[in-house]
Amino acid sequence: MKINCDMGESFGLWQLGCDEQVMPYLDMANIACGMHASDPVVMKRTVQLAKQHGVTIGAHPGYPDLQGFGRRQMTMSNEELAAFFIYQLGALQAICQSESATLGYVKPHGALYNAMMKDDGVFQALLSGLKQYNPDLPLVVMAVPDHARYQDLAATYGIQLWFEAFVDRAYDDDGRLTPRTAAGSSHTSLEKIEQQAVQLIEERSVTTLTGNKVAIHADTLCIHGDGPLSLPTAQLLHTRLHGL
Amino acid sequence: MKINCDMGESFGLWQLGCDEQVMPYLDMANIACGMHASDPVVMKRTVQLAKQHGVTIGAHPGYPDLQGFGRRQMTMSNEELAAFFIYQLGALQAICQSESATLGYVKPHGALYNAMMKDDGVFQALLSGLKQYNPDLPLVVMAVPDHARYQDLAATYGIQLWFEAFVDRAYDDDGRLTPRTAAGSSHTSLEKIEQQAVQLIEERSVTTLTGNKVAIHADTLCIHGDGPLSLPTAQLLHTRLHGL
Amino acid sequence: MKINCDMGESFGLWQLGCDEQVMPYLDMANIACGMHASDPVVMKRTVQLAKQHGVTIGAHPGYPDLQGFGRRQMTMSNEELAAFFIYQLGALQAICQSESATLGYVKPHGALYNAMMKDDGVFQALLSGLKQYNPDLPLVVMAVPDHARYQDLAATYGIQLWFEAFVDRAYDDDGRLTPRTAAGSSHTSLEKIEQQAVQLIEERSVTTLTGNKVAIHADTLCIHGDGPLSLPTAQLLHTRLHGL
Amino acid sequence: MKINCDMGESFGLWQLGCDEQVMPYLDMANIACGMHASDPVVMKRTVQLAKQHGVTIGAHPGYPDLQGFGRRQMTMSNEELAAFFIYQLGALQAICQSESATLGYVKPHGALYNAMMKDDGVFQALLSGLKQYNPDLPLVVMAVPDHARYQDLAATYGIQLWFEAFVDRAYDDDGRLTPRTAAGSSHTSLEKIEQQAVQLIEERSVTTLTGNKVAIHADTLCIHGDGPLSLPTAQLLHTRLHGL
Repeated sequence: MKINCDMGESFGLWQLGCDEQVMPYLDMANIACGMHASDPVVMKRTVQLAKQHGVTIGAHPGYPDLQGFGRRQMTMSNEELAAFFIYQLGALQAICQSESATLGYVKPHGALYNAMMKDDGVFQALLSGLKQYNPDLPLVVMAVPDHARYQDLAATYGIQLWFEAFVDRAYDDDGRLTPRTAAGSSHTSLEKIEQQAVQLIEERSVTTLTGNKVAIHADTLCIHGDGPLSLPTAQLLHTRLHGL
Repeated sequence: MKINCDMGESFGLWQLGCDEQVMPYLDMANIACGMHASDPVVMKRTVQLAKQHGVTIGAHPGYPDLQGFGRRQMTMSNEELAAFFIYQLGALQAICQSESATLGYVKPHGALYNAMMKDDGVFQALLSGLKQYNPDLPLVVMAVPDHARYQDLAATYGIQLWFEAFVDRAYDDDGRLTPRTAAGSSHTSLEKIEQQAVQLIEERSVTTLTGNKVAIHADTLCIHGDGPLSLPTAQLLHTRLHGL
Repeated sequence: MKINCDMGESFGLWQLGCDEQVMPYLDMANIACGMHASDPVVMKRTVQLAKQHGVTIGAHPGYPDLQGFGRRQMTMSNEELAAFFIYQLGALQAICQSESATLGYVKPHGALYNAMMKDDGVFQALLSGLKQYNPDLPLVVMAVPDHARYQDLAATYGIQLWFEAFVDRAYDDDGRLTPRTAAGSSHTSLEKIEQQAVQLIEERSVTTLTGNKVAIHADTLCIHGDGPLSLPTAQLLHTRLHGL
Repeated sequence: MKINCDMGESFGLWQLGCDEQVMPYLDMANIACGMHASDPVVMKRTVQLAKQHGVTIGAHPGYPDLQGFGRRQMTMSNEELAAFFIYQLGALQAICQSESATLGYVKPHGALYNAMMKDDGVFQALLSGLKQYNPDLPLVVMAVPDHARYQDLAATYGIQLWFEAFVDRAYDDDGRLTPRTAAGSSHTSLEKIEQQAVQLIEERSVTTLTGNKVAIHADTLCIHGDGPLSLPTAQLLHTRLHGL
């Protein structure tokens, strides 16, 4: 089980996250590619930081919307989706190459991630882009009860999926994340986060907001790089999964 | 002697140039990379078009300034210059890869091109970026009388230079282009353009605005993809250099 | 009955439309405000052109999406919608003021226009923005059979509506425009356009794609500023409505 | 003597500065206008905050360069400079109007401010823009020994100048700021800042890095809104100038 976290979300003068503190505890760094966050300088520094700590580098492409941080749904055609996706993967790949580092996987960001999970058309546009560019790059998607359906679709494009679960977000009985707007949607205590992480690792399940258990088979656990619990969460999971 | 031309300078709904008409007559297509012009969809279509006509694809990176079309001088640090350069090369490289096409060379655009020729710091930042990313990609620079100086600098980074001359721009006695703002700086007759092209090919020289001959050793001739003379110039040079 | 047309949709080096040819035949110029198209220089020149021909100037604000030309739906909160709306109105108002011209009305663009017509939340966010900024500016909306509903909502914000109909777009039996993706959605003959214009002016109705008549009460007719029929359509309507 | 400070420099999700803490101690808030920083929502909230504390609102326009935070020199024509200037003033003016607040003055940002002080062409382009838009808005410029020269130029456009001095930056013997890259260019102790402020207020002079006194006649003192000394500096100056 690997720990993944969004990294490199600063932009120009604006700082976001605490990458230097959190990076040492990660297995996978999802690095923004300049369309919803980051810029070439931030990308280069973040790749350097990931390489220094031996963290696997993933591309974290998003909608072209800096002001909205890629969190606004935007209607794009499949042709646009695939082209914008490839563009961002290539930009980060080049930065990696310039640092003798390797691009290891892809995880879409924000509203694009949500659209991929909800709309097979978007999912297939991204799969198609990945197949055209480099089908050896695994795609990170959300661990959901009907994950076989996603795997079948991905297999037709020759793409491997990595499923991720969230340690600090509440789940509904359908095995999907509770919307952020709902009460209790984010865990605010480290104990709760640890409990959910342990259950995901050992029992491959989560306990939903209503108290039910839902099976979740995750390959990687996503933590958040910003906020007061980021660093302790990263440290906690790192110790639990990899020891000191 | 190869013919090169800027291609793929449309953006979103806005069309620029007549790529479909001109592309068949080119040897090298300088394709914009999304920072001063173009976007991922335009890039993909332009790569497809170049591939279809067997035209060598070059990256045409510029300053991040769509509204100014990369024609405004911007002060960027060497770290910024190299990172923005690599970012753009990688984005186009990925588009090429997704079309089973190959990126063959690099030619900076507009104000970045001018800065590279005037300021060794900028030139070396680009050479450094190229060395970090892929030193096998030749860099197109302006053919100038003191080209040995540029070659020596490039050699220290292991980068090959391709020198280009312009068939439709007037030259000054120092072997540099006459500024666009000066009278007579652009040739407006096809005869004049043909004469300059022939002289560049056969005599490796140009006749300056004041009537002097200056030696210019060019590897490639640049033509412009927009304007009423673009297509006839492309056809004329293609016939002269490659026959029917 | 007034003729309105989108103007000032160029951006930087990229030209769009034929504003200089069409402007003399208009009553109302909807001028883009820099977020989906245009820039401050284009805005200033377009205001000068409108003023020169005595054309009433309207603000044409859109979503912040130059690459998508404001045609992509974007989910924005009501707070964002109102603030982005006011920002754009003010920017054009200042350009008008600097040319001793007056801002006369507001017409949203593209996907924002569509969202306003489909989603009362968006419509009210714009009405609220207009009320906060300047409730004396009329808002142009689509002439629809249930226009009373829109008028009632607008009245609660103290905003006057101007209803517009389209002379070159086909209508469905529900009195709404046929989607652009449908066959026959745009009229390609000047005769058809003229017939629809005359019917809108004289009978206050349109004949739908299926041959039915639907009542449409329009205050203004929208024509398109780009394409081969733009100029003849503008001239035709100008003659019909205002004589020579 | 008034205290001015840059405010509203956040952008989308990215926070910058500590506006809520500092605003209560200011007389003048220089609010970014969306081209080098800020966006319509940030502008609206910042205008609300300024109004709440009775702080005079100024427009803080900059070069169109979010990634570079308006700190990169960009070559723009006079026509472009004036149009981009007016655009930004109008956008903020509209936000003010929507909050029943008033725009009180203008202070250019970053590289545009520096260009204005160094290049009379840029200074006159801004004066011309201000004259076209609203000549009643005073323009904040740097207090320099040859301020009469700036005043004479401004007077030909009918524009009033307000001169500002800096309390936390070192001065050279020519009465200009020591470049940021030089050692000792920024004061890092509150005592030093207080000493410079008191001298500017009481003696109308500064002591330069080499220990000389240079006369500086300032109408307003600029403090910085970010960094550990921002809040104590604001509090200190507020107490000194306005008592509790």
